[in-house]
Amino acid sequence: MGKERNGNYFEDFQVGTKITHATPRTLTEGDQSLYVGLTGSRAALYTADTNARQLGFERRPLEDLLVFNVAFGKTVPDISLNAIANLGYSDVRFVAPVYPDDTLAVKSEIIGLKENSSRQSGVVYVRSIATNQYGVEVLTWIRWVMIRKRDSGADCLEKDVPSLDPWVPADHLQWGAYTAAVQNISSATGVGDLWDDYAVGERIVHPGAMAINNSDHSIATRLYQNTAKAHFDEFSAAAAGGQRLVYGGHVISICKALAYDGIENGLSILAINAGSHVNPTYASDTIACATEVIDKFDFDSNYVGGLRLRMIGVKNARPESIEFPGSKLGKVSYPSNVVLDLDYTIAIPKRM
Amino acid sequence: MGKERNGNYFEDFQVGTKITHATPRTLTEGDQSLYVGLTGSRAALYTADTNARQLGFERRPLEDLLVFNVAFGKTVPDISLNAIANLGYSDVRFVAPVYPDDTLAVKSEIIGLKENSSRQSGVVYVRSIATNQYGVEVLTWIRWVMIRKRDSGADCLEKDVPSLDPWVPADHLQWGAYTAAVQNISSATGVGDLWDDYAVGERIVHPGAMAINNSDHSIATRLYQNTAKAHFDEFSAAAAGGQRLVYGGHVISICKALAYDGIENGLSILAINAGSHVNPTYASDTIACATEVIDKFDFDSNYVGGLRLRMIGVKNARPESIEFPGSKLGKVSYPSNVVLDLDYTIAIPKRM
Amino acid sequence: MGKERNGNYFEDFQVGTKITHATPRTLTEGDQSLYVGLTGSRAALYTADTNARQLGFERRPLEDLLVFNVAFGKTVPDISLNAIANLGYSDVRFVAPVYPDDTLAVKSEIIGLKENSSRQSGVVYVRSIATNQYGVEVLTWIRWVMIRKRDSGADCLEKDVPSLDPWVPADHLQWGAYTAAVQNISSATGVGDLWDDYAVGERIVHPGAMAINNSDHSIATRLYQNTAKAHFDEFSAAAAGGQRLVYGGHVISICKALAYDGIENGLSILAINAGSHVNPTYASDTIACATEVIDKFDFDSNYVGGLRLRMIGVKNARPESIEFPGSKLGKVSYPSNVVLDLDYTIAIPKRM
Repeated sequence: MGKERNGNYFEDFQVGTKITHATPRTLTEGDQSLYVGLTGSRAALYTADTNARQLGFERRPLEDLLVFNVAFGKTVPDISLNAIANLGYSDVRFVAPVYPDDTLAVKSEIIGLKENSSRQSGVVYVRSIATNQYGVEVLTWIRWVMIRKRDSGADCLEKDVPSLDPWVPADHLQWGAYTAAVQNISSATGVGDLWDDYAVGERIVHPGAMAINNSDHSIATRLYQNTAKAHFDEFSAAAAGGQRLVYGGHVISICKALAYDGIENGLSILAINAGSHVNPTYASDTIACATEVIDKFDFDSNYVGGLRLRMIGVKNARPESIEFPGSKLGKVSYPSNVVLDLDYTIAIPKRM
Repeated sequence: MGKERNGNYFEDFQVGTKITHATPRTLTEGDQSLYVGLTGSRAALYTADTNARQLGFERRPLEDLLVFNVAFGKTVPDISLNAIANLGYSDVRFVAPVYPDDTLAVKSEIIGLKENSSRQSGVVYVRSIATNQYGVEVLTWIRWVMIRKRDSGADCLEKDVPSLDPWVPADHLQWGAYTAAVQNISSATGVGDLWDDYAVGERIVHPGAMAINNSDHSIATRLYQNTAKAHFDEFSAAAAGGQRLVYGGHVISICKALAYDGIENGLSILAINAGSHVNPTYASDTIACATEVIDKFDFDSNYVGGLRLRMIGVKNARPESIEFPGSKLGKVSYPSNVVLDLDYTIAIPKRM
Repeated sequence: MGKERNGNYFEDFQVGTKITHATPRTLTEGDQSLYVGLTGSRAALYTADTNARQLGFERRPLEDLLVFNVAFGKTVPDISLNAIANLGYSDVRFVAPVYPDDTLAVKSEIIGLKENSSRQSGVVYVRSIATNQYGVEVLTWIRWVMIRKRDSGADCLEKDVPSLDPWVPADHLQWGAYTAAVQNISSATGVGDLWDDYAVGERIVHPGAMAINNSDHSIATRLYQNTAKAHFDEFSAAAAGGQRLVYGGHVISICKALAYDGIENGLSILAINAGSHVNPTYASDTIACATEVIDKFDFDSNYVGGLRLRMIGVKNARPESIEFPGSKLGKVSYPSNVVLDLDYTIAIPKRM
C-alpha cells in the first residue's frame, strides 16, 4: 500500500514512454485576473473584450503565457519533481486560442535520454501536448531537463538525443486565428508601429523594471499547480545554504509584460524557439529586459506577419546596459546578471 | 452616536444568544482561482469542469476549505475579534456543495461558556451554520475560543460546557452528492488508490513543503474577510515583542493541498472531527505534513466510503520526521515544530 | 524606428492636449475577488449578489475604488511615468455603476500647467474621464502631478492653473442609482446607523490595522496596470538610497476597507473632493485610520443622503492617536506618521 509520491528519477524514463498528466484544469477569468496582478501584462488582445472583438475575435482569449505556464505545471509531478535544472525549450508552438472556461489536458512522451558523465544524473527530453475539452491541440512543446538518478550505479539506456530545430520555421506557425481585423490594433494601443516598422537587427530597450517578491512567484507557481520543490521549500533550501528559486516561467512572464513597451502591437506568441534560464532568479531581484529583432517572417497573409525576437532578461541592472552576447543561444558565456535568453516569435499586424 | 466597533468580550456572550453575521458573501470563480494561487490545491473535483462532470456533477463546485474559511471569517467580527486563541473545532460538517455565484450567509448561537481561573478571560463555545441563497444549509461547525474579559472583576455566568462528540459519526456525514460516477476519478488523477487501498493505521508522508510568505497569508485571510487583528497588525504585534500570526485556516489549507500526494482520489472533506493549532505559524515558516488513517467508514453505498484521517502539520522540519504523538487530540505534549493536529473525514470512491 | 517609450516630460504637455489612453480594460469577477484579497473590503453592496438585489440593483456592481484605481492606472504611461509626486485630486466623481464584464476606456485632457521655480520640473493638471463599453461616462477626475523636465533650460508655457472647487457640491453628485430599496442595508450589515445618525464634527476611530506587504501593493498596482516605476523598480530605488513606494491608491483602498467598521451602511463613494498623500508609505508599514464627518448633504431624496468625510491614514501608530490637523487639506503641517488626508463623500441611506 505504499503511497510515497517521490516523482520519477532518470532511470524511470524510457524513450517512447507516454504519460497522461493529472489532472485536467479549467482556466477562468479569475486566473486571467490573477495573471495580470502577478505580471502587470497589458497585451491588447487579452486586456479588453472590446479589443478582442475589434481584432476579429468573438471573445477575449486567455493570455498565451498563462496557458503555457499552466500546461507546463501539469507536467512537473511526473517529469521534473526531481529536476536539478530545466535546461531548455524547443518547438514551443501556440496552436489555437484558449478561452475562459476551457479545460486543458496535458500528455507527454519521452523523446530522448542522455546520462551525464558524472553518472549522478541525466537529461530527459520530453514532448508535451495540451488539448482543450474538445480534444483540439492548443499548445505543444519540447523541453529537456536534468534529473537525478535514484541510484548512481544503475545501468542506463544508451544515449538517444533527439534532433531539434534551432527555431520553429515560418510554415509551422499557426497564425490562422488572425483576420484582417487585426489592423485595428493601433486604435487600442495608440501606437503605430506594425510588422513593417521593425528591422532585423533592431534593438529595443524596454524601460520598465519589476522587483519579484516572494509571494509574487509563489502565488504564480501555485496558480500553475507547479509543485517543483525548488520554488517552495525554503526550509530545505536554507538547510543546503541556498534559497528558493523563482520559477523560470514567471521570469518569462515578467519579461514579456515589460516588453509591451516598444512592441505594443504584438498580438500573441506563436512560438518559443529556444530559451535558457541562464542564471537563477531569487526573490527581491529586480528584472529588466531588452529585445533584438532576429528575423521577420512574411506569412502568406496580407495582414499579419511574424517577428522572431531575442529577449534578454537581467537582474539588478538597467535595461540600457543589456548586451546580446554571442550568436547562438546557450553557447556563450553570459554576464552573471543575465537570467533569461529567450528566442520567440510573435504575430503582429502588417500595414495594409 | 458611539460608533466604536471593538468587538465582543467574554462578558458580552450568553448561552442561547443568536447572531446573524454581516454580510452575506457571494463566492465566484475568481475566489476559486485565488484559492489555487494561495494554496496550490490540485483536488480533482475542483480543478476542472471536465473532472466534475465525469464525477457526476453538473458543474464544478467550489473548494470545501474555501467555503469553510469564508464562512468562518464571517463570524470573526462578532465572535473572535478579541480572541486570545482559537482553541478547537468540533462537528464541522460539509453538508451540501457550494457552486460559483452562490451566496453564503452565516448565523451563530452561543452554546457554552467557561470563565478561566485567572478571571482575565473565558472560553466561548459557538455553533455556526452557513446557508446558501436558497436557505439550504451547506456547512455547520462548532468552535471554541478563548476571549478576553473587558473587566476582570465582572461577574460571569456559571460554567456551561457543551458535551461534544470526539468525532462526527458516520451516519451524520452527508455523502449524498456522490453517485456511481465517482468511480471515474482515477482517469483524472492517474492514481489507482481507492477507499479499499487505505488501511487503518497506515501512514502517508506527503513529499511537498510550502513556505508561507507574508502576502500569502494576508491575502488569504483578507479574501476570507477575516478581520482578526493578530493576522494583520504588525505594528501592535511588534510593539508587544512579537509578530503577526498566520491564520490557522490558511495552515489547514496548505496542509490539505500538500496532502494531495498520496490521497489523490479524495473527493471532498465530509467533516472536520477535531483540530488544534498546536503552535503558532509565522511568515517564512515552511510547512510540511503527514497523514495517518484513523478509521474507515463503510457507508451504505457501493461507490463511496469515508476515511477518517489525522493530519499532523509541522514547520521547518522534513515530513519524514513527523511523529503522531499520543492517541487523543490536544491531550498530548507536542514537539515545538508541530503546528497542526487535524482529525477529518473525507469521501473517497470505493472499488466496484 | 525609435521605439523608446520613456513617457512624457513636462515640456511635452500643452493645455488643451487630449490623450486616449491604452488600452481599454475589461473588469471581471476575478478582479473583484483579487480586490477583496488585497484590501479585505467588506462593503455590503459589493460583497454579495443577495445584498445588491436587496438594495435595488439587478446585479452586484464592482467596487468603486477598484474602478478608480484601474482607470487611474490607464493614465500613468502617458501622464505620470516621469512623475516626481502625485500632488492632489479634485472633482473625482463616481457617475454610474460599473458591472463585471464592463470595459473601461479612459481619455484625458491637459487643463493646466505651472513650471516650478527650480525650472527642473513642473505641475501638470489633468482631467480624465472613464467610459464604459456603451460610451457612458462612469468616472471623472482631476489630478495634478509634478513631472520632471527633460531639459531644465527649455522654455515653458506661461503659468495656467485651473480654478478648482475645494469639494464637489451636492448638486454635482450622482446618487440616482439608489432607490428606496437601500433601506434594507441594515439587514445585511446588522448595523442600524444611517445618515441621520452621523453628526458634523463627529469622529470615528476605526479599530483595525493592516500591514502592507511588498506583494500586496505590487499585485494591486499591477492589477491596475499602473506602470509607475517608483512602485516596482527596487534596484533603482536602492541605488538611490531608497526603496519602492507603495502606490497611493492602494493606501486609499486599505483605509477605506478599514473604515467599514463604524460606517457599515455606506453604499458607495460619490466623490473624492480632495486628497493628499502626505508622507510616503513603504512595505511593512502598518496602516490605521480615523474619520471625521465634515458635512452632511440632504439630497432631494427621501431615502439616501450624503456624508462628506475626512479620513486620516497613519502608519505605525494606533488609530486612537490620530489627530485631524488644521482645517484645510494640504495647508497644514502633518505629523510624520500621517500618510493620507482624504476628503470624500459617500451615499448612505436615510431613515424613512
